[in-house]
Amino acid sequence: MQNYKAPQRDTLFITHELLDMQSHYKKLGFEDASEDLIRAIYAEAGKFAENVLAPINAIGDQQGCKIDDGVVTTPDGFKEAYATYVEGGWPSMAHPEEFGGQGLPYSLATSMAEWFSGANHSWAMYPGLSQGCMETLKGHGTKEQQDLYLLKLIEGSWTGTMCLTESHCGSDLGMLKCKAQPNDDGTYSLTGTKIFISAGEHDMSDNIIHLVLARLPDAPAGTRGISLFIVPKFNLDEKGEPGERNAVKCGSIEHKMGIKGSATCVINFDGATAHLIGQANRGLNCMFTFMNIARIGTGVEGLSAIEAAFQGALAYAQDRTQFRSMTGVKNPEGPADQIIVHPDVRRMLLTQKSLAEGNRALANYCMKLVDITTYGKDEAENKIADSKLALLTPIVKAFLTETAQEATSYGMQVYGGHGYIAEWGMEQLARDTRICTMYEGTTGIQAIDLLARKIMGSKGELLNVFTKEIKDYCAQVRGESQFTTWINSVDSHVDEWLQITQDIGKAAANNPDELGAASVDYLMYAGYVTVGYFWLQMAVVAQKKLDEGTTEKDFYEAKIHTAKFYFDRMLSRTRSLVSSIHSGSDNLMQMKPELFKVG
Amino acid sequence: MQNYKAPQRDTLFITHELLDMQSHYKKLGFEDASEDLIRAIYAEAGKFAENVLAPINAIGDQQGCKIDDGVVTTPDGFKEAYATYVEGGWPSMAHPEEFGGQGLPYSLATSMAEWFSGANHSWAMYPGLSQGCMETLKGHGTKEQQDLYLLKLIEGSWTGTMCLTESHCGSDLGMLKCKAQPNDDGTYSLTGTKIFISAGEHDMSDNIIHLVLARLPDAPAGTRGISLFIVPKFNLDEKGEPGERNAVKCGSIEHKMGIKGSATCVINFDGATAHLIGQANRGLNCMFTFMNIARIGTGVEGLSAIEAAFQGALAYAQDRTQFRSMTGVKNPEGPADQIIVHPDVRRMLLTQKSLAEGNRALANYCMKLVDITTYGKDEAENKIADSKLALLTPIVKAFLTETAQEATSYGMQVYGGHGYIAEWGMEQLARDTRICTMYEGTTGIQAIDLLARKIMGSKGELLNVFTKEIKDYCAQVRGESQFTTWINSVDSHVDEWLQITQDIGKAAANNPDELGAASVDYLMYAGYVTVGYFWLQMAVVAQKKLDEGTTEKDFYEAKIHTAKFYFDRMLSRTRSLVSSIHSGSDNLMQMKPELFKVG
Repeated sequence: MQNYKAPQRDTLFITHELLDMQSHYKKLGFEDASEDLIRAIYAEAGKFAENVLAPINAIGDQQGCKIDDGVVTTPDGFKEAYATYVEGGWPSMAHPEEFGGQGLPYSLATSMAEWFSGANHSWAMYPGLSQGCMETLKGHGTKEQQDLYLLKLIEGSWTGTMCLTESHCGSDLGMLKCKAQPNDDGTYSLTGTKIFISAGEHDMSDNIIHLVLARLPDAPAGTRGISLFIVPKFNLDEKGEPGERNAVKCGSIEHKMGIKGSATCVINFDGATAHLIGQANRGLNCMFTFMNIARIGTGVEGLSAIEAAFQGALAYAQDRTQFRSMTGVKNPEGPADQIIVHPDVRRMLLTQKSLAEGNRALANYCMKLVDITTYGKDEAENKIADSKLALLTPIVKAFLTETAQEATSYGMQVYGGHGYIAEWGMEQLARDTRICTMYEGTTGIQAIDLLARKIMGSKGELLNVFTKEIKDYCAQVRGESQFTTWINSVDSHVDEWLQITQDIGKAAANNPDELGAASVDYLMYAGYVTVGYFWLQMAVVAQKKLDEGTTEKDFYEAKIHTAKFYFDRMLSRTRSLVSSIHSGSDNLMQMKPELFKVG
Repeated sequence: MQNYKAPQRDTLFITHELLDMQSHYKKLGFEDASEDLIRAIYAEAGKFAENVLAPINAIGDQQGCKIDDGVVTTPDGFKEAYATYVEGGWPSMAHPEEFGGQGLPYSLATSMAEWFSGANHSWAMYPGLSQGCMETLKGHGTKEQQDLYLLKLIEGSWTGTMCLTESHCGSDLGMLKCKAQPNDDGTYSLTGTKIFISAGEHDMSDNIIHLVLARLPDAPAGTRGISLFIVPKFNLDEKGEPGERNAVKCGSIEHKMGIKGSATCVINFDGATAHLIGQANRGLNCMFTFMNIARIGTGVEGLSAIEAAFQGALAYAQDRTQFRSMTGVKNPEGPADQIIVHPDVRRMLLTQKSLAEGNRALANYCMKLVDITTYGKDEAENKIADSKLALLTPIVKAFLTETAQEATSYGMQVYGGHGYIAEWGMEQLARDTRICTMYEGTTGIQAIDLLARKIMGSKGELLNVFTKEIKDYCAQVRGESQFTTWINSVDSHVDEWLQITQDIGKAAANNPDELGAASVDYLMYAGYVTVGYFWLQMAVVAQKKLDEGTTEKDFYEAKIHTAKFYFDRMLSRTRSLVSSIHSGSDNLMQMKPELFKVG
C-alpha cells in the first residue's frame, strides 16, 4: 500500500505564491503567522499525518468500530492518535487566545484538515465534528456555556457532535420531531432519536458534548420551530468536571460502505438534561455559521481523497510494467515499459493531478475568505468576501466531492484488477470518500442552494461579485501572450456563465422546476470554470517564477503542463453541461410519476 | 432492501418488438424458440433470480468466502442455489443438443445472464466462468476432451475456470511464466501460480476444470509462445469420474471491494497433470472465441447493475418524502412530497432508466450477432455480422460497465446518507459492479482494441459496416416527422464519428500515441451514439404501437419520454468528448515522466 505524503510544497505554492497569505495574515493582524512558522507547522502536521494517521488507516477499515451495550470502541490506535493530536496542540490551533486557542487563522487549518483526512478520513471525522461544535458554541453560546464547554473542547479533552438528522428527515429539517420539555431549573428534558451521528459515541475523550436540534412544546411547525441544545454525555458537576451520566445512549452504530473507523451512531435521548443555546426557535440560524465551514470542510475531504488517489496511482504507474509504449521502447532493461508511458494512464493521472491542485487552490481561497469575514476590519471588503463565500461554499462542497468520486475511481482503475484488492488501499479510498457527496447536504441540495437560494435569491448579485473578480483578473493578465488562449477561455466562460444564469432565470419565472432541472449541471459548470480561473492564475504565477529563474524548474513546469491538460481536457466538460442545462425541465418532468415502473 | 425484479416486459420489448428475434430464430433454424416458449423460460428465470438468488445476495456480501487449507466454502445458500440452477437445466440451455444441451440460441441466455447477475452478481460468477470454459472446449477441444469434460460442464455437475492472469501480467499476457513440461504419456506437468481466478475453488461442484495458459519449454517469447491446457482439480479415473486429486491448490482468496461471495483465488499448480487443448503455442487464439462472449457478458453484468440500481432508487424515490415540490404540493396528506417530484431526483432516475433500457437493446443486439456468426448459413450475412460484432464487443464491454459506475452511484445518491448504509443494498451494488471496468480487459484495453486494432486495423472497414446500418436506418425512418430532431441527431453524429476517426487516423500516422490519447473518449463517444441509435429505434417502435392502439399505453409512452431524456441529456455528452478527443496527445505526453511527483 502506498504511503501517504502530505503535499507540503504544493500547499505552500498555493498559500504563499498564489494566494499571498503572508500579506493577508499581516492585514488581519495575525503578525505571528510568518512563512517560517507556517513551514514549521506544515512540517509537524505532515509528520503527524504520515507517521501517526496513515499507518492506522487500513486498520480502521478492517476493524471498524465495535459497540457493546452502548459503549463504542474505536479501532486500534485511534485513541492513541487522538491523544497525540491533543498533546500536539492541534485542536486549539485556529481558535482565539481568549478561549485557550493559539490565535492562528482559519485558513491555516485547511491544510491540516486536508492532510489528516487524506491520511485517514475515518479518524479525522472525530476532531472534525468537534470543530463544528466549537464554532457553534463560539458563535452562539453564552459566556458561561463557553467557559463550561468550549474551553475543554478547544483543549481537546472533550469532543463534540452535531445531532441534526432523524430517520425520516435529513435535508428537510423542518420535519424533525425530537422534543425538549422545559424543567423548573431552566434546563430542558430532551427526548427523541437522532441518526447518522458521527463521533456520537467513542472512547477517545472524557466527555462528549452533543449539540442537538429539537422542538419546544409550543414551537411552530417547520423550520421556524427548531431550537438548539447542549446535551453533554456526562452532566457537569460543580467543578465543571464530568459528573453523573446523562440520559443519552448510543443505540447502535451503522454498517457502512466506508469510513468504518468513524462511529456513525444512533443516539437515543431519553429525557436527557439539555441546555438551550441561542434563542428559542432559532436553532437553524445557529447552525448556519457552522454549516459554511463544515461544507467547505467536506469539500476538503474530497480534495484530500483526490490527492491520496493520485499518490497511489502515480506510484503504481511508475512501477508496474505492462506492454511497450507505442512510440518505442522506454524501458529497455525490463520486459515491458512502466505503464505511465501509456497515454490513457497519463489521462487518468493528470485528471487526478489537475483536480487535486486546482481544487486545493479553490478550497484555500475559500478559507481565506472565511478569515476575512471573521477577522476583517474593512466593512466593504468583508461584504465582498461574504458574497463570494456564500456563492462558493456550495460549489466547493459539491464540486470537490463529486470530482473526488472520479479521481478515486481512477485510483483503482490505474491498478487494473489490483485496484479492487483491499491491500493496495485504493478501494478503501473510493469507499471512504463516497460519503462526501451525501453528507453535509447532498450534491442536489448544494446545487439548489447555489442556483435558487444564492444566485436567484440575490438577483444575480452574488454571482456578479465573483465573476467581476475573474473578469478583472483576465483583463489584468491580458498581456501574458503565451496564455492568451486560456485567458480567452476563462473570460468567455464567464460571459457564458452569466448568460446561462439569465436564461435559467427567465425560464424559472414561468416554471420553478427549471431551477432544479438545471441545478446540478449548473453547479458542475460553475466548478469547472472556477477551477479553470485558478489554473490560469497558477500558470501565470509559475511562468513568472520560471522567467525569473528558479531552482525548482520541474515543479513550475509541471504546473504549466497540468494547466494545459486542465484547459484542454477538463474545462471542455462545460460543453456537455451547457447542452444539458439548455435542454430544460420538460425532459424530466413531463413523464407522469405513474409511468416510472419496474419491469 | 429493495427486492430485485427481473425486467421481463422490457426484455420482451427489446427481443421481440425491437430486434424481431422471432424471425431471427426461425431463420437460424431454432424453430422451437417460439415466443410462448421464451415467455415461459423468462417466467421461470425471473422466479429463480427473484426467489432464489436475490435473497442470498446480501448474505454473500456479509459472509464472503472462507478458506481453510485450500478448501473454499461459499456463503450460506450459494451451494444450494447452484444445485437448484442445475436441476432447472439452466447450464445447458444455450448449448447444442449433441453435447446434451437444449439447443437454444445464445441470445436467449443473455436475459438470464442479466437477471441472475442483477439479483446476485457474486453467485452468477460461478456459472459465468463455467460458460467461458465450455465455449473454449466447444471451439477447440478434441472430441475426446469434449466427451470427457464438456458434457459434465454443460450438465452442471462440474464447473470450469479460465486461468490467465499472473501477478506480474494481466493485460500483457505475453509476459506470462507458467510452465508446462511434456510427460511421456502425452500429458504435461504444469507449474506456476495464477492469480485472480474467479470460481477457482469452491464447494458447489464435484470437479473443477481449469483452462490454463502456460508456456512449453521450447516456446518462443511473447504471445506466440503461449499454449492452453486443461487441468482438472480431480484427475479423471477410467470411467471418466473424478479420481485422485491433481496437484492444483488454492493458496488464498483475495480480500476485495465487492463480489465477496465470489471466490477470487490464487491457484498454485505444482506439476499438475495437464492436457493440451488446441495447437501448441496457439493458446491465445483459443481464448478469442471465449473472450468475445465473455466481454459482452461483462457488459451485461454492468447492465444488470444499472437495472438493479434503478429499481432500488425508484422504490425509494416513490416512498421517501422530503420537501415540497417547487411547483406546488403533490402529496397533501403527507408532511412532504415524495422525492420523485424533485427534478434532480428525476434526472438521476432517468439517467439510470435510459441507460438500462438503451444498453439492454445494445447487449441483446450483440448477442443476436453472436447467434448469426455461430449458426448463420449465409456467408455474406455472417461476414457482416462478424464485422459488427468485432466493432461492438469492446464498446459493449466498456460502455455498459462505465455507465454502470454512474448508475450505481446514483442508486446511492438518491437515498442520500441512507445510500451509504449496507442494509439498503445500494452500496453493495456499487461495490460489486466496480470490478466490471477492470476485469476481462480494462476500459483502456477495450478502447485501444476498438480504435487501434479494430478500426485502424481494418482501415475503417469495420466502422463503415456498422455506420452504414445506422445511416440506412435513419434514411428509412426519415418520414417519421415527430422524430426528425432525433433522426438528424443520430445521422449527424454518425458523420461526425466518421470524421473524428479520419482525424485521429491522420494524426496517428505521425504519432501513434494519438490513438491512446483519444481512445477512451472515443469509445465513450461511440457508446453514446450507438445507444442513441437504439433509442431512436425504440421510440419508433413504441410510437407505432401507440398509433396502432395498445392496452399498454403507459409502457410505450414511458419509452418515448425516456428517449427524449436520452437525446436531450445523455447524447449531448458527446460534445465534451469530441472536444477532448480533438485536443490530441500533447497535453498528455509532453510532460516529462520525471515531472510527475508527489508533494
